[in-house]
Amino acid sequence: MMKNQTYCVIMAGGGGIRFWPVSRTARPKQFLDMLGTGKTFLRSTFERFASFIPAENFLVVTNAAHKELALEQLPELTERQILTEPLGRNTATCIAYAAFRLQATAPGAIMIVTPSDHLILNEAAFRDVVEEGVDFASTHDALVTIGVRPTRPATGYGYIQTGKSVGDSHLHQVRIFTEKPSAELAQAFLQSGDFVWNSGIFIWQTEAILRQLEKLMPDTYYLFRSAGAVFGTPQENDSIARIYPECRNISIDYAVMEQADNVYVRCGDFGWSDLGTWGSLYDYLPKDENGNTTGCEAVTFDTTDCLVRLPEGKLAVIDGLSDYIVVDTADALLICPKGTEQNIKRYIDAIKFHKGERHI
Amino acid sequence: MMKNQTYCVIMAGGGGIRFWPVSRTARPKQFLDMLGTGKTFLRSTFERFASFIPAENFLVVTNAAHKELALEQLPELTERQILTEPLGRNTATCIAYAAFRLQATAPGAIMIVTPSDHLILNEAAFRDVVEEGVDFASTHDALVTIGVRPTRPATGYGYIQTGKSVGDSHLHQVRIFTEKPSAELAQAFLQSGDFVWNSGIFIWQTEAILRQLEKLMPDTYYLFRSAGAVFGTPQENDSIARIYPECRNISIDYAVMEQADNVYVRCGDFGWSDLGTWGSLYDYLPKDENGNTTGCEAVTFDTTDCLVRLPEGKLAVIDGLSDYIVVDTADALLICPKGTEQNIKRYIDAIKFHKGERHI
Repeated sequence: MMKNQTYCVIMAGGGGIRFWPVSRTARPKQFLDMLGTGKTFLRSTFERFASFIPAENFLVVTNAAHKELALEQLPELTERQILTEPLGRNTATCIAYAAFRLQATAPGAIMIVTPSDHLILNEAAFRDVVEEGVDFASTHDALVTIGVRPTRPATGYGYIQTGKSVGDSHLHQVRIFTEKPSAELAQAFLQSGDFVWNSGIFIWQTEAILRQLEKLMPDTYYLFRSAGAVFGTPQENDSIARIYPECRNISIDYAVMEQADNVYVRCGDFGWSDLGTWGSLYDYLPKDENGNTTGCEAVTFDTTDCLVRLPEGKLAVIDGLSDYIVVDTADALLICPKGTEQNIKRYIDAIKFHKGERHI
Repeated sequence: MMKNQTYCVIMAGGGGIRFWPVSRTARPKQFLDMLGTGKTFLRSTFERFASFIPAENFLVVTNAAHKELALEQLPELTERQILTEPLGRNTATCIAYAAFRLQATAPGAIMIVTPSDHLILNEAAFRDVVEEGVDFASTHDALVTIGVRPTRPATGYGYIQTGKSVGDSHLHQVRIFTEKPSAELAQAFLQSGDFVWNSGIFIWQTEAILRQLEKLMPDTYYLFRSAGAVFGTPQENDSIARIYPECRNISIDYAVMEQADNVYVRCGDFGWSDLGTWGSLYDYLPKDENGNTTGCEAVTFDTTDCLVRLPEGKLAVIDGLSDYIVVDTADALLICPKGTEQNIKRYIDAIKFHKGERHI
């Protein structure tokens, strides 16, 4: 693995309201320590890669409003390493931006692209998988995606059907991408043994992804290319402010991965979760003998399997709840059954409609 | 009714944790506006009587720690009118104290004794009942208690069985007092028609109650009498500090009303509740079409018949609760089924045991 040519692009542009009322537009999930580890997700993501990638080889793409939060979390980085988006345009545009920047400032780079807010429990196993992906990508015109062997028939994830393996490597060709399947389909995927979860972590040469963007998303590609020689210069922000609103709001999976013919998957078992809901967070939090999360001052009666989160110093008495989420913050309180927390978007919409933006 | 000889003694010594986490030892229920009327219970109680009793004829008995709260609520009163208890010794001792004070400073007074934290909806009807009680007490050596015609088989109240009526008055002799009956007994009481709720509001001549205290609670009576000529002087507080810890911790109902042979009851219908629990408060609060209380920023889904109370400016999203109490304050949150809020004492004990006194 060629250390000096391997770059890590951390996508930290998410709006992060899924953990409302703790996550807010002003401080989305990636800037929070939701698991009580003492580190934000962004910091944990950085440290996971910093063990084998030098700090100067990181780029973080985030909303302009969160630039200071990102620098605060990653003091090892310089301001130039924080790529700011004037508005969110999903992962395809984010990746195009990072690729154009790297093409200008680090020709010949290998890009690792990673979300900033996922959980990975076995960092050593993860590193082995990534390093093998980097080795493969550095010698092939390939788009490598990291797959996760499924442990349950999750309906909230994207699945990748693996095809033939490549030589004597652990990589496989990709047959098909399937977004969020039905429960029955997810069950069938799990049983078939050749479907893996799409982790959203990618590895490729900058040139390889740019070639696919030119072919599969030419509108966005030429918008960036028209910005010419500004990447890496003081004019970059002005160009981005002009380009971004014109770009398509589309994920890299839809725009490229599902279309390209040079996609490979490296599967791994490294204890992964996208921690997309309060319920998925519950699974990873320490719990007492009644299945209620610990770590806050809650006194419970006849209460089981609840996720309870309170501000520092706050006390709660909870009687007669099972399988609920109770999350309190200084200015907002959420109480909902654990199975319904995917309704958070609905809650947020109702709040905006009835109460305005103040608590979002 | 002899205005200048009629005095109103407001008992405001309650610890008031039944509305935890809103009521606290530092600010018990009587110093709170639980119904959102803009007035505390103490203030409402004062105004109820102030329409026919001059301000200088009020005494308020309260814990020494709450003297300033009482004066703040009742600026019409002077400091001398606030009788402070060094510790709570229940209503019998409170009434003995007030009676000895009045004997010293207003000989020949008629005392109206009232709790400070009850709800009375029909103030005109209430006033008629009280005035008739005062007229009767001023001409008889009688202990008059105000009864409330029951509207449901409540198990949380004391009941009085009425006997023969007295002349052509609306007063009745009292046959028996029964504290908190079983559900079956309460049903039988309701059906019989001659049981009324004991409101805890009493009317008598100072001399009449002192005679009964001497007879039925001589230990306490002589403790006060031994204080001699200090009542109404600057030495009163020192005497009280010495006397109070020695007094029996007993209610006037047990100590006197259930024993004395000159007890009469005047029944009324004036929309009374002791508002002793969150559930009883719920009945009197404005509600939306789903039966959830209004007046705070709660956005509800699949939620019915809940009492929700939030601090000013706080937002709550509540999904999937029916018949619950959700009360939030700056430093404590309560969530419990509406039927179990009589458990508050249990909650408080658990908090004290696990977390200390800070949130009580």
